[in-house]
Amino acid sequence: MKNISINPFNGKEYNLPENDKDQTSINRFLKINKNKNIIAVQGLGFVGAVMSIVCANSNKNEYAVIGVDLGNKNNYWKIGSINQGNFPIKSSDPKVEQYFQNTVKMGNFLATHDPVAYSYADTIIVDVNLDVNKKSDNEGELISYDLDLSPFKLAISTIGKYCREDALILVETTVPPGTCKQVVQPTIQNELKKRNLPTNKIKIGHSYERVMPGPEYINSIKNFYRVYSGVDENSAIETEKFLKTIISTKEYPLTRLVNTNATEMAKVLENSYRAMNIAFAVEWSRFAEEAEVNLYEIIDSIRMRPTHSNMMYPGIGVGGYCLTKDPLLASWAKINHFNSNHNLGQSEKGVKINDKMPHYAFEFMKKVFDLNSLANKKILLLGVSYRSDVGDTRYSPVEPFYLNCIDDKAKVDTHDPYVQYWEEIKIKVSQDLHKKLDEIWDIIVFSAAHSEYKSPKVISKICKMSNVKVLDTLGILEQNDIIEINKNNKVKVLGRGDI
Amino acid sequence: MKNISINPFNGKEYNLPENDKDQTSINRFLKINKNKNIIAVQGLGFVGAVMSIVCANSNKNEYAVIGVDLGNKNNYWKIGSINQGNFPIKSSDPKVEQYFQNTVKMGNFLATHDPVAYSYADTIIVDVNLDVNKKSDNEGELISYDLDLSPFKLAISTIGKYCREDALILVETTVPPGTCKQVVQPTIQNELKKRNLPTNKIKIGHSYERVMPGPEYINSIKNFYRVYSGVDENSAIETEKFLKTIISTKEYPLTRLVNTNATEMAKVLENSYRAMNIAFAVEWSRFAEEAEVNLYEIIDSIRMRPTHSNMMYPGIGVGGYCLTKDPLLASWAKINHFNSNHNLGQSEKGVKINDKMPHYAFEFMKKVFDLNSLANKKILLLGVSYRSDVGDTRYSPVEPFYLNCIDDKAKVDTHDPYVQYWEEIKIKVSQDLHKKLDEIWDIIVFSAAHSEYKSPKVISKICKMSNVKVLDTLGILEQNDIIEINKNNKVKVLGRGDI
Repeated sequence: MKNISINPFNGKEYNLPENDKDQTSINRFLKINKNKNIIAVQGLGFVGAVMSIVCANSNKNEYAVIGVDLGNKNNYWKIGSINQGNFPIKSSDPKVEQYFQNTVKMGNFLATHDPVAYSYADTIIVDVNLDVNKKSDNEGELISYDLDLSPFKLAISTIGKYCREDALILVETTVPPGTCKQVVQPTIQNELKKRNLPTNKIKIGHSYERVMPGPEYINSIKNFYRVYSGVDENSAIETEKFLKTIISTKEYPLTRLVNTNATEMAKVLENSYRAMNIAFAVEWSRFAEEAEVNLYEIIDSIRMRPTHSNMMYPGIGVGGYCLTKDPLLASWAKINHFNSNHNLGQSEKGVKINDKMPHYAFEFMKKVFDLNSLANKKILLLGVSYRSDVGDTRYSPVEPFYLNCIDDKAKVDTHDPYVQYWEEIKIKVSQDLHKKLDEIWDIIVFSAAHSEYKSPKVISKICKMSNVKVLDTLGILEQNDIIEINKNNKVKVLGRGDI
Repeated sequence: MKNISINPFNGKEYNLPENDKDQTSINRFLKINKNKNIIAVQGLGFVGAVMSIVCANSNKNEYAVIGVDLGNKNNYWKIGSINQGNFPIKSSDPKVEQYFQNTVKMGNFLATHDPVAYSYADTIIVDVNLDVNKKSDNEGELISYDLDLSPFKLAISTIGKYCREDALILVETTVPPGTCKQVVQPTIQNELKKRNLPTNKIKIGHSYERVMPGPEYINSIKNFYRVYSGVDENSAIETEKFLKTIISTKEYPLTRLVNTNATEMAKVLENSYRAMNIAFAVEWSRFAEEAEVNLYEIIDSIRMRPTHSNMMYPGIGVGGYCLTKDPLLASWAKINHFNSNHNLGQSEKGVKINDKMPHYAFEFMKKVFDLNSLANKKILLLGVSYRSDVGDTRYSPVEPFYLNCIDDKAKVDTHDPYVQYWEEIKIKVSQDLHKKLDEIWDIIVFSAAHSEYKSPKVISKICKMSNVKVLDTLGILEQNDIIEINKNNKVKVLGRGDI
């Protein structure tokens, strides 16, 4: 195995660094930016990379940003890519590229694997992952879940080994409630003690991100509401001061909560709320199928009420990094950080219902099309990402649906305008929709609600096909489309009865 | 037992009619209103009585309304009261009295117990109750529930015995999905057949009400969104025509759904959504108590997000006629009308969690105030209605809380600015808050979030008391109030940790 790290999206290769030193380039960067305050961002994923360029494009242009990630196979390509002038995330938001190119011009954004970067930072932003390991059976039923805090603790102690004694550490990672007080603060203080530094000057704030990959990627950081807190009064004050330099807080006022337990709870609560409301819609979509009515139409009629305007639609499943795990983070914290002897039953149930949706969609497909087996059936999946008009495939519900089809010996092909390479499945995804539609298919599945699939040209092409079964898992077909398709073919929609 | 019907709110007595005939007054009414179209409203409760006066005040003034209810002890007082010029419902919405007095002046609203009224009606609106019988243990745990459709069927067949063959019957009652098609239509057709009338001219529509007793009572009918459908095309068209004469449909467009199954489902779905979202908040309020944070403050911070602006608060419980039963109507219908072999688990769970809230509040009170027993404790409940600034005590969560206290031998007194007589408990409720607060209490409980309780004068009076414990079950006290009360007393808030 070569010591390289590969960009999964374009296949570009980067040689891994031989050691963890990158002092020369850091020194050069500091020299160019000697009049600027330094921000270090830990973690260059979907949040950290974009947070970095938002900080480097602050209104007063007062920051130089060093993005830090690990020098290993999984992560180093992000560092290499940034330093070569290629942003590692492709987005439908044109501002992402624009903001990044701005930092290239200004020379105020460096990526490095050398943790010494933290020692120069006034502010260190924590944007690393904190994963839940879920164990499910092959029907998607959650059997157990587990949380290993040690990678997160290690990331925090790395900061503690290098940071200035008076730095502001701003945690943005979604953590189990109680983590800033019970894990982050003691870990940092412990490292400072080892370095014979005082522990009373460090500031630790918590302000979770509400990043939405997609057409409003930058706005979801810069122009959006934030909640924040600190582990003590001074930390809260400094966190507020910092956020005001990054976020448009006049239009989107900050909300301070009393302590980090409260803000940590706010994050997992708001995501659990969404997850549970989707699970609720799923439950009713089964009823709609039985009563032969259209749940999407019913939900639209209810959404007219301002108090019900945010009711969720059902679909093929819930994906992404947050809604699939955050309720479990909360349950875990309840037991492990607050000694509760009961979990969050309603919220956990939401995750469990959602986890089973792709499997249900698969079984629904076989049932409504009268197929005992999918052996040798040619199936085209339109969309593999977890969300409409977004290229993010993390925990996509299309993944278990795809795997179910493959296990059943189907021949499955995929299209997605936002995903060239499906990292989790390790396959290439087609970008040419019309070419794909020209091939012969037994079943076409609308598996993501990308705008491209709703275009009259695409729908009309599908209408004209013959001998193809169409499954709409997201209610994206209109009544007229369905009637039209049904003339030559057979179409079924999850969450609604027959037309 | 005298043959009288008593107005529970003011004690006024009405002699029951000797038979079901009221032809003389109906004839007189028809003569006065000979140029008007006749609407009959079946059921003069919280919906029917107010729907009646909204119809009688239609923009073009084209309707005369006959409200029909039963001539028995439980209901006749409403008929007597209306015909004496006293509206049976007192409301904080001044328009209610104004609309009613208008009908008195115009002489276009009559109440009667004589079902012959239906024979004169162009339109018959069904606003009768349809109850779920819940059986719970003494901790509020739902053991079983049952639904008896026969009183509803009887009401419908009464209409069928009298109605014109071409009348429009508009069902507004919340019914189990499937009821209009499987129960209402066959029942009406059966009665028409018995009368040797054709069955193809009758029109049956469904458009559920979204009535909100309180300061926007009239607006919640006249100026609000509506969903409608019909059992056939003609029924839907006539329903739409009728609704357009009553509701401000330009500002609040109507939504037509494909059939009555769909509109019936929409109603129970939207109420289940609210009920489940409250249950969700309840679950998290337990976590907030454990983590010693303030859930109300957390929810407020999340509500800044437009997608989360309707998140619900927890509280002492869920009451009223709808949210406590509608998810069960849906589950019942799923099994009984659509042969499903599984219920709506998530939605039913919502009802179950909510049902236990008053009992939890009671146990919380004993725990946080270190009381093994409430024997001889003087407790004042501020608010007995189920909702802030509303005088409706149907299924109020304060009821089980009150009964728990009484069972524990406490001496409980009550205040509510909107309720003079608590019908379910059969006790008078004080209207004089300051007099009540001047008495000696062991515990004062904020049990409804009426505006009066939030006034600085009231809060300051409670702050100055000594040796009183204050329980806020609804998060209506602000942080400063709590600090102030805590100086002399002990205050605890459901859903938040200590200050």
